[in-house]
Amino acid sequence: MITSTSNAQIKELAKLQKKSRLRDEKGIFLVEGPRMTEEIPAERIEKVYASESFAKKNKEFLEKLQAPVELLTDTVFAYVSDTKTPQGILAIVKRLNYTMNDLMQVKNQKAPHLVVLDNLQDPGNLGTIFRTAEAAGVTGILLSKDCVDVYNPKVIRSTMGAVFRMPFLYVEDLPEKIKELQKESIKTYAAHLRGENAYDEEDYTTGCAFLIGNEGNGLRDEVADCADCLIRIPMEGEAESLNAAVAAAVLMFEAGRQRRKK
Amino acid sequence: MITSTSNAQIKELAKLQKKSRLRDEKGIFLVEGPRMTEEIPAERIEKVYASESFAKKNKEFLEKLQAPVELLTDTVFAYVSDTKTPQGILAIVKRLNYTMNDLMQVKNQKAPHLVVLDNLQDPGNLGTIFRTAEAAGVTGILLSKDCVDVYNPKVIRSTMGAVFRMPFLYVEDLPEKIKELQKESIKTYAAHLRGENAYDEEDYTTGCAFLIGNEGNGLRDEVADCADCLIRIPMEGEAESLNAAVAAAVLMFEAGRQRRKK
Repeated sequence: MITSTSNAQIKELAKLQKKSRLRDEKGIFLVEGPRMTEEIPAERIEKVYASESFAKKNKEFLEKLQAPVELLTDTVFAYVSDTKTPQGILAIVKRLNYTMNDLMQVKNQKAPHLVVLDNLQDPGNLGTIFRTAEAAGVTGILLSKDCVDVYNPKVIRSTMGAVFRMPFLYVEDLPEKIKELQKESIKTYAAHLRGENAYDEEDYTTGCAFLIGNEGNGLRDEVADCADCLIRIPMEGEAESLNAAVAAAVLMFEAGRQRRKK
Repeated sequence: MITSTSNAQIKELAKLQKKSRLRDEKGIFLVEGPRMTEEIPAERIEKVYASESFAKKNKEFLEKLQAPVELLTDTVFAYVSDTKTPQGILAIVKRLNYTMNDLMQVKNQKAPHLVVLDNLQDPGNLGTIFRTAEAAGVTGILLSKDCVDVYNPKVIRSTMGAVFRMPFLYVEDLPEKIKELQKESIKTYAAHLRGENAYDEEDYTTGCAFLIGNEGNGLRDEVADCADCLIRIPMEGEAESLNAAVAAAVLMFEAGRQRRKK
């Protein structure tokens, strides 16, 4: 058991918590809490750190993970934890580098169903979109380079585990990538306040991609202009827009609904 | 201009920020930031407090509010603000006491469309549900007594103004209230993992209410048991549940979609 914060491994772990660039370099990310840890595919866990009191109460849980476990005193664990009330377990997880092929992988003979995020900034929104996307049968998520980091701890928590299963890819040039999708017969729909057609008047049973913009400003013009079709979610009252994760959910589940009916 | 934090009005305002019970007693709530302030119906603003530098830059904005404005030095404003980076404007707003009649008020000859929240705890979720509900044409929101406070500053912010327009009511006994709805020919649907029918197989064009449960535990049995119908949102992948605000959004917009088609 590690009892000191000056232990070399602990120093390294503390650095990993603080420096996202170091996590990028090592191709890993950190996951905290038992609920998220049990969602990690076994082959992707590099190492698990558990506090003394967590380990005492959760022997079976730790064995089930089939991963190397290092024990820390509660004080040392609190030192490396990212949260105010540490839950006593933290895992180092290998990243996967997805390709466009992974994002287009269809199950049950359905067509690709993509979500494209332009400059999304709120970690809770991004995590919720991952969680919703998995449930709605989305095959992959594309993100502009300036979206919030998927490996941000708050994003990871909000995905409720979908981050381990949903293929995603950051792209340098979103308009360019949208054109590539179109060449692959993926029809691209931009959720836009100026959209002419209501979202439920389009057919999403063939390959489709939904373009979702930034929380405050919506889609950038150069991205919206690439879309095959601007769609609008009809709104009543004085509401001017929807939360980005909610707008994405309404569209993804409309596609899911149509595909079940087919 | 008020220049000291020992000013009687400032002391009172600081108390109002800290003590929700005092806000309850006075029948008011506090709203911060220009974006939310401009959404407040003029007749409900009791008073506006603006920082010196905000007032200098936003003369027209303050005049447009048609409300009594008190100026504070920036330091005094920072003292009474609830946020880390104060935006320089804060309003005291009168609460409205809604009745069941307000929640059932239909527009455009449509039937009542209610959302019923059981022990919802996350302020961001509650605010997002208000915002989405307004856009989806919901007529009113019922909340169990143990839901998070609608007047929590984080809830208010996430509503993006819908809190000023969406009728809502906290109820002591949710199962009792659900029975009352049923007597009024409102069909009640519980979003439930054990639901038999997919949500898009039901008809929501007549009076309907969607029952949404707590983030971690879903609907309490005694509430779900009252529903006329348990519905399920079909999910793919390994997703076990949806975020509460997302589940509510999918249902509310399905009702909106059906009502537009009718």
